[in-house]
Amino acid sequence: MSHPIIFDTDPGVDDAQAIAIALRHPEIELLGLTTTYGNVDIETATHNALLLSELAGRDIPVAQGAAGPMVKPRHPAPAHIHGANGLGNIELPELRGEKDPRSAAQFIVDTVNARPGEVTLVAVGPVGNLAAALQLDPGLTEKVKRVVIMGGSIREGGNVTPVAEANMFNDPHAAQRVLTAGWPLTLVGLDVTHRCVLSQAHMQRIEAGQGELGKVLAGSYAFYRDFYREFLGIDGCCPHDSCALAWLLRPELFTTAPGHLSVVTEGIAEGLTLFAPEGRGFIQERWSQTPLAEVCLEVDGEAVVEWIADTLS
Amino acid sequence: MSHPIIFDTDPGVDDAQAIAIALRHPEIELLGLTTTYGNVDIETATHNALLLSELAGRDIPVAQGAAGPMVKPRHPAPAHIHGANGLGNIELPELRGEKDPRSAAQFIVDTVNARPGEVTLVAVGPVGNLAAALQLDPGLTEKVKRVVIMGGSIREGGNVTPVAEANMFNDPHAAQRVLTAGWPLTLVGLDVTHRCVLSQAHMQRIEAGQGELGKVLAGSYAFYRDFYREFLGIDGCCPHDSCALAWLLRPELFTTAPGHLSVVTEGIAEGLTLFAPEGRGFIQERWSQTPLAEVCLEVDGEAVVEWIADTLS
Repeated sequence: MSHPIIFDTDPGVDDAQAIAIALRHPEIELLGLTTTYGNVDIETATHNALLLSELAGRDIPVAQGAAGPMVKPRHPAPAHIHGANGLGNIELPELRGEKDPRSAAQFIVDTVNARPGEVTLVAVGPVGNLAAALQLDPGLTEKVKRVVIMGGSIREGGNVTPVAEANMFNDPHAAQRVLTAGWPLTLVGLDVTHRCVLSQAHMQRIEAGQGELGKVLAGSYAFYRDFYREFLGIDGCCPHDSCALAWLLRPELFTTAPGHLSVVTEGIAEGLTLFAPEGRGFIQERWSQTPLAEVCLEVDGEAVVEWIADTLS
Repeated sequence: MSHPIIFDTDPGVDDAQAIAIALRHPEIELLGLTTTYGNVDIETATHNALLLSELAGRDIPVAQGAAGPMVKPRHPAPAHIHGANGLGNIELPELRGEKDPRSAAQFIVDTVNARPGEVTLVAVGPVGNLAAALQLDPGLTEKVKRVVIMGGSIREGGNVTPVAEANMFNDPHAAQRVLTAGWPLTLVGLDVTHRCVLSQAHMQRIEAGQGELGKVLAGSYAFYRDFYREFLGIDGCCPHDSCALAWLLRPELFTTAPGHLSVVTEGIAEGLTLFAPEGRGFIQERWSQTPLAEVCLEVDGEAVVEWIADTLS
C-alpha cells in the first residue's frame, strides 16, 4: 500500500532525516514538499528542501510558504540547534532546481483537490501553511485522507517553554486553527519523540547507505548531536520529524488515544496543547467541545529508530 | 522537634484526614485552623473544622476566611465528591464550640507575627486566605518559616481541567500571588498525591484507633471512595491533603526540585501551574523570573499511606 503525502517542513536537521525517508521509502508517494519558516528562515527552508531532493536524485515539487507566524511576531531561528544554514553549518553542494511558482497553501489545495480522499498531509514545522490552506479552501477538511502533525506535548512538558513544544509555540494561532479543524488528525508530540534517540551508530548506517544525501545527513547530525549533548545531556538526538512518518507507516509501534485538542494562543502558557480524553468529564464542557482528534501517548522508541535506520540503510 | 503550624483548609473528606493528623501527631503544634470555601461552602468548612477538633478532644482556634475566589466567579462546591456536608453526608454530632472572631487572614498575620521565623503555613484548599494575609502584611514573606501548599500539577495533568488542579483552578489569581510571593514555599501537587492511595484496610486501622473522630473519618471515606471507584476507577482514595503534612514531617519520602512557578489566571489553561526548573534555559526569560520555590515531583506513595495509617492508629 502506498501513501500519497505532502510533507510540510522547515529543514532543519531532523527534518532532513524525515525528508530522506519520504524520498526513499517504497510505501510513500511524495507528491511535494511545502516549506515554512521555523528551524530556519523561509528561503533557507526552501533551498534545503530542493537540495535534499536533488541529492536523492528526485525531482519533487517544492512550494514555498509562511515566512512567519499568523499573528504574533517571529522569533529568530534557532541557529545554535540546526546551524545558520539549517544543516549544521556543513558545506553544501550547489543547488540546480527551482521552486514551484505556487504558494505552499495553494499547492496543498490543488494537490488535495486533484486526488480527493487520498492525500495525507504530514506537517513537521509551525503549521501556518495548513491554516492558510484551510483559509483558501475550508472544504479541505473533507478531502484530505488524514493530517499528521509533529508537534505539541500532552504529558511531557515543553521544550521551548515549560509547557509548550516549539512548533506549537512558534505559531499558536495557526495551531489552534489546524488542531481544531475537524479533519482526521493525529498529533505526534514530545510524549513519543522524546522516547526515540537516534544514535551515532544508527547514523553511521544511514551515512553508508545514502551516498551524497547520507553525507549531508551525517554532517548535520553531528552538529545537532552537540546541541543535545550540551543542553539536554542526551547522547544522540531525537528524530522528531521522522516520528510523524513512523506513525504513518508503523502505527502499531505507537499507543494513541482519542480526545479533544485545544491550543493556548496568549499568555504564559502560549503554545500549550490541551488534551481532553474522549468521555472524560471536567468541571466545565469547554475542553471537550472541539472536534475529536488522536494523540500519540506512548511508543516503542527503540523500534522507531531501528525503523528509521533500516529505511535509510 | 515540633512544627508549629497553621492549617488552612476546606474540609472536605481528605482535609478531615489531614486535620486528624495535625491534631494527633506529637511533632505538630497546631496553632489554629483557618477555613476557606472550596470542597464545601465557607460556613460548612468552618463547622467541620470546629467539629473535627472537638471530636479529637482539642480546643483549637478556628478562623473563618474566604467565601469565594479573589477575582472570578465561584464554582458550586463538588457535593458528589465530598457530600453536601463535606463529610460524605454522614450524620454528624452537634457542634458546641465557636469560631475565632478574626478573619483567617488576620489570624495568620497575628499568629505569625507572635512567633516570627517559627510558623509554617500549610494550605490545602484554594489559597485566598494566604493571598489576603499577604495583602494585610506583605512582610509575612520574611516571617513565616515555610509555606506548604497542596495544589498544582507539574507533569501529571489536571483533575478539574485537562491541565489544572482544583485548588489552583478555584482561585488562580490568589495562587499566582501566593506561589510567586518569594517566601520559602513547597508545592505538593498531583505529581505526588496521585501516587498515594489510602485503602479500605488503612481506613479500618484509622477507624479503630480514633474513637468518635475515627467514625467520621471512616464514614466520610466510604462516600469519597465511591467517587474514586466510579469516576476514576481507583479502589481507595488519594489522601491529597495529608501529603502536605507527610512532606513536612517525612520529607525523605519525597523527591523535590527547585525552580520558578507561575500560575495561568485566564483562558483555557486557567489554573495551570508552570514550573521552570532552576538553571534550565527556555526561549524567553519570563518563566524563570519568579522567585525560587520547591516542587515535589516523586514520592514513595506506599510509605506515605503507611505513615498516615500509623499516625492515626
